[in-house]
Amino acid sequence: MTTASICTIGDEILIGQITDTNSAFISKALGKIGIKVVHMASCSDSNKDIISTVKRCLRMSDVVITTGGLGPTKDDITKNALMKLSGSTRMVRSRKQMEIIKNILISRGIQMLDINRMQADVPDKCKVIPNKIGTAPIMQFTFPKEMFGRENMLFSMPGVPFETEEAIPDVIAAIQAHYKLDKIFHRTICTFGIAESVLSKKIEDWENSLPQNLHLAYLPNPILGVRLRLSIYGTTQKEGEEELDRYSSSLKEILGDAVYGEGETNPQTVIGELLLERGATVSTAESCTGGYLAHLLTEIAGSSRYYWGSVVSYDNSVKINTLGVSTKTVEKYGVVSSQCVKEMAEGVRKKLGTTYSIATSGIAGPGGDTPEKPVGTLWMAVSGPKGTVTSTIVSKSTRAINIERFAASALDLLRRSLISGKI
Amino acid sequence: MTTASICTIGDEILIGQITDTNSAFISKALGKIGIKVVHMASCSDSNKDIISTVKRCLRMSDVVITTGGLGPTKDDITKNALMKLSGSTRMVRSRKQMEIIKNILISRGIQMLDINRMQADVPDKCKVIPNKIGTAPIMQFTFPKEMFGRENMLFSMPGVPFETEEAIPDVIAAIQAHYKLDKIFHRTICTFGIAESVLSKKIEDWENSLPQNLHLAYLPNPILGVRLRLSIYGTTQKEGEEELDRYSSSLKEILGDAVYGEGETNPQTVIGELLLERGATVSTAESCTGGYLAHLLTEIAGSSRYYWGSVVSYDNSVKINTLGVSTKTVEKYGVVSSQCVKEMAEGVRKKLGTTYSIATSGIAGPGGDTPEKPVGTLWMAVSGPKGTVTSTIVSKSTRAINIERFAASALDLLRRSLISGKI
Repeated sequence: MTTASICTIGDEILIGQITDTNSAFISKALGKIGIKVVHMASCSDSNKDIISTVKRCLRMSDVVITTGGLGPTKDDITKNALMKLSGSTRMVRSRKQMEIIKNILISRGIQMLDINRMQADVPDKCKVIPNKIGTAPIMQFTFPKEMFGRENMLFSMPGVPFETEEAIPDVIAAIQAHYKLDKIFHRTICTFGIAESVLSKKIEDWENSLPQNLHLAYLPNPILGVRLRLSIYGTTQKEGEEELDRYSSSLKEILGDAVYGEGETNPQTVIGELLLERGATVSTAESCTGGYLAHLLTEIAGSSRYYWGSVVSYDNSVKINTLGVSTKTVEKYGVVSSQCVKEMAEGVRKKLGTTYSIATSGIAGPGGDTPEKPVGTLWMAVSGPKGTVTSTIVSKSTRAINIERFAASALDLLRRSLISGKI
Repeated sequence: MTTASICTIGDEILIGQITDTNSAFISKALGKIGIKVVHMASCSDSNKDIISTVKRCLRMSDVVITTGGLGPTKDDITKNALMKLSGSTRMVRSRKQMEIIKNILISRGIQMLDINRMQADVPDKCKVIPNKIGTAPIMQFTFPKEMFGRENMLFSMPGVPFETEEAIPDVIAAIQAHYKLDKIFHRTICTFGIAESVLSKKIEDWENSLPQNLHLAYLPNPILGVRLRLSIYGTTQKEGEEELDRYSSSLKEILGDAVYGEGETNPQTVIGELLLERGATVSTAESCTGGYLAHLLTEIAGSSRYYWGSVVSYDNSVKINTLGVSTKTVEKYGVVSSQCVKEMAEGVRKKLGTTYSIATSGIAGPGGDTPEKPVGTLWMAVSGPKGTVTSTIVSKSTRAINIERFAASALDLLRRSLISGKI
C-alpha cells in the first residue's frame, strides 16, 4: 500500500496559536485515492527542524506533503530548506506563478514588491504546480530510492487552508500519474442522540462479527453526533462496496432513527433535503444559541431555498416585542422553559410565514445557573402545521460546546419530528 | 530550556475525519510556563505506532503529552501500549476515577457497564490525575534517563477536547512541581484590515531593528486579522516585559488604528468593551452572514449586557416585512447594495431599540454572482445616534471563509466607527 506523511511547518503551529486544519483536509483527499496516511508531524520555522522532519517523513512513507512556511515574510523559510534537502543549486522564477501573483495584487489594489516577486522563485530541482488563488506556488519533487531509502514524491503546499484546498486536486492528479495505487474503502454511518458507550454496547454482537480486514472507528462530535466509520482493506472496489453495504445495512437496522445519514453529511444538510422534498420552509427563534443555529443552516450553499431567517432574541424585550412571547409566560415560567420556547417557535413561524420553525432557550454558561435549571440546560421547540413539540437536555460542557450541542440537538428534534410526522 | 512534544493518537486523525485542536491548546498552556514545544506528531490506533511514536517523542524532548485512544471502545488501545512502553506489569483500578465515572453515568442516566468500569484501570507504573468531567483518567509517568536518554515526564490525556482543557491545569502543575523552568515571553499585537505583505513592508525597518533574541511571527486569520507575535527568550521576566513593551509600543505607533488589541483578544471582545464603556447596546441585521455575526458576538460570555439580538433576513420577505427595507430599494439597487444595508441597519436599530446596529448583505458563494457584483462582494452598514456609515469589500475565498471574513469586516467597521465617533 502506498503510504504518505503530512508535515505542517510553522512556529505558529508549535506554539499553539493556530490550529492545523490542513492535515485533516489533505489526509481525506489522500484516503479517497487509497493512500494511507501513516504519520503526521509539525515542526518549527527552522532550517534544521524542517530538514530533519521532512527527511524522517520521506524515510517513513512514499509520499510527503508539507504545508506552510511559504509566505512573503522573513519567518517563512521552507523553500530554502527544501532547496538544500533536494540538492538544488539555484532558484528559478516560475513565469506562470508570476502572472498569477501580478493578477492577485492588481485585484487587491496592492503594489508589487520584491518580496512578492520572490514568491515565484523555486529550487531548480522542482516542478511547479501553480497556486491559482494565492501567491506561493506548489513545489513538486521526486527523489530516487538512493536518497531516502524509497522512491519518494514530495509536495510543498501553502499554509493558508483555502489555497491548499484549491490546489489539492492538482497534487492528487500528480500522485495518481506516478503510482499504481491500492484501494481502501470507507463508509461512515452518522448517528445523533446516543452516547458512545451506549452505542458500543448496543452494537457489540455486530462488532464482534466483523471480518479481520474491516475496521470500525467511533468519531464523536457535538454537532455531528457519533459517526461510525467502517474501513475495508485488501479487496477490489466491488467486493469492498458489497461488504460495506452488507455490514452498514445490518448496523442501520440495529440503530433505527438514531441514524441520520451516511458519509460526509451533517444534520443541517439532511434537514435541507427533507424540507426540499416537501417543498417546505423553516425559520428559527434563538436565545442561548445566539445565531449559531441560523449559521449551521446557512453554512449550506443553497439553503436560501428553504431557510427564511431567524430572530435572535438575546434580550427578553426581543422575545416579547418581536416574537410575541407573553409577559405572563416569562414571569411565571421563566425564559428557559417549555412554555417560552413553544411561544417563540410559534411566534417566529407566524411572523416569518414558514412551514416549520425551531426555537431554543437555555443557559450556555459559564454563569446563570439556578438549582432547578443548571448551566447547560436547554429547552427547545419545533413547530409546524400539525402542532408544536418541546424537549429538554442538559449539556455539561464549556460555553462553546454547549452552544454547538444545543443547536445540533434542536436540529435533531426537527429531523425526528419531520420523520415521525408529529409536526 | 525544557522541551515538550505532543502526540495525538487516533485513526480518525490520520484519516482526516477530525481536526486536532488539542495540540494547539496544550501547546499554548506549555508555552505560558516557558516550555517550548519542539515537535508534534499524530499516529494511528496501533500498538506498534503508538509505542514507536511516543518513544521518538521521549527521545526528542523532556515532556511528552499524548491525547486520545482512551475511550471505552475496542479501537482505543493507548493504555495497553503505555503499559508495555512503561514496563508496567498489571492494571490497577483508580478509586477516585471510579467514583467520577459512577457520578457521570448517573447524571446522564446511563447504566454502568464493564467497559465503563475498565476505564478506571491504569498501568501500575503511573500516577493518576483524575479526569473530573470525563470517564478516562489522565496517566502520569516519570522515566529515568536510562530509559530514553533523558529524564522524562509522560502524560496521557483524553482525546475529547473539553476534557483535555479541563485537566490541563493539573498537568501543568505536575510539570511545574518537577522542573526548574526557563522563561519565554510572548506579546501579540492584533491588527485588522491590512494584508500580510503590505503589513510586512510597512514594518520592515522596525523588523530589521529587532534584537537577535526577539522573534516575530505573522499569524493571518479571517476573523482575527493578521496578528503579530513577538517572542523573547533568555531574559528575566522584568527585562523581557520591558523589551516587549518597547518594541510593541513602536509597532503600534506605526500601525495606528489598524491595531485593535493585544494578546488573546478578538474583535468581538474589543467591541464588547467599547460598548460597555459607553453603556451602549448593539443589534444586528444579517443576510449573507446568516447568523454568524450574531454568533461571534454571543460567543463572548456576558454579551447579553450589550447585545440585544439579530434579525437574520435570509429571505427578502424578511428584509421587507421585519426590517422595513423598502420594496423600491430592493428593486432599484438590489439587496447587495449600500442602500439596502443602510435601511437594514437603521431598521433593526429602531425595531430592537439599541444604541448601535450592524447590517450585512452580500454574496457568500459559490453561486449567485453577476458582472457588477462578483461572488465575495459584501455590503455592510453600521448605524448609531449620529448616522449611518456603509462600506464594501470583496473576499475571494470559499463560502465558509467568505462568511467569516464578512462578519469580521462588519465588526471592524463598527469598531473603527465607534472610535472615530462617526456614528
